[in-house]
Amino acid sequence: MAASLDGFIARKDGSVDWLETSDRYAGGSTLDPKEVEAFLETIDCYVMGSRTYETALAFEAKGFGWAYGNKPTVVLTRRELTKVRDTVEFYSGDLAALFNGRLRSTFGSIWVVGGGAVVSECLRLGLADEVRYSIIPILIGEGIPFFGRLADDVALHLVDVKPYDTGVVELCYQVPK
Amino acid sequence: MAASLDGFIARKDGSVDWLETSDRYAGGSTLDPKEVEAFLETIDCYVMGSRTYETALAFEAKGFGWAYGNKPTVVLTRRELTKVRDTVEFYSGDLAALFNGRLRSTFGSIWVVGGGAVVSECLRLGLADEVRYSIIPILIGEGIPFFGRLADDVALHLVDVKPYDTGVVELCYQVPK
Repeated sequence: MAASLDGFIARKDGSVDWLETSDRYAGGSTLDPKEVEAFLETIDCYVMGSRTYETALAFEAKGFGWAYGNKPTVVLTRRELTKVRDTVEFYSGDLAALFNGRLRSTFGSIWVVGGGAVVSECLRLGLADEVRYSIIPILIGEGIPFFGRLADDVALHLVDVKPYDTGVVELCYQVPK
Repeated sequence: MAASLDGFIARKDGSVDWLETSDRYAGGSTLDPKEVEAFLETIDCYVMGSRTYETALAFEAKGFGWAYGNKPTVVLTRRELTKVRDTVEFYSGDLAALFNGRLRSTFGSIWVVGGGAVVSECLRLGLADEVRYSIIPILIGEGIPFFGRLADDVALHLVDVKPYDTGVVELCYQVPK
């Protein structure tokens, strides 16, 4: 996931207008669309919270297309949400059961998109193998944090650091079992 | 400043015990003392909030020594704090006046130590030239954030990225004027 240097994936109202500020400042797209596409190619299944889902729908409505292609996408929600495509499934049950009982046996590479509670819950339950985190060179002061609360500290193992010309830095960590 | 991957410089009570967890996990000091020393050599004057000052005093009391040597140190506080050395000055006045009226004309390299309100205030007032931020490979869930609230977004220019063997990643950004 991409976040501001101060750790936010969106403003409090869910907007990501600051990505445009950052693009303008960089004189181009801070997130290289080709790199993003290449990364998404490696993903077999998406898991996300309802806010991320709604943000993706809003992007699509603006003409940017549906970001997750034809890949199976599980949206974690207890709310009644509009289902606009067959690849999307709404799920409100146990997270560990979803991963260990169903997804892991079917999909090699599962990406938990978004942040906050969903990411923390995956870390807390030991469901995450890897944390990929791209830092966009901007401070926005407040918003929806990528990382949420944890019951215990999680020490990570740095695997890779990739700085881009646009000023984005991609960090990749392994989560020890 | 060094912070956890989720952006905290200390737990809510000011403790930094998680640095030891991170050291243990890395099998050594995550922050290379020689590198830290070499960096501190380049600093002419320190500015910090009262909590950072008290943390430094607590470290000294534990036998780790006073981190800021004989360099002039301005502690921003409205509280009555104990002054235990001549190099420390307490200041409760205007921050811009302190930097532009006094410090900048005397010192080449001023380091704002700590985080939260002091760093945000410096960014808000356009007093910061550079943001240096070391990411320690651990998540602690909650604590005192390095970055605080801002009135406006601050787009940054990535200058340098340095990964260390211990898993720490040092980021350096220029703050545009």
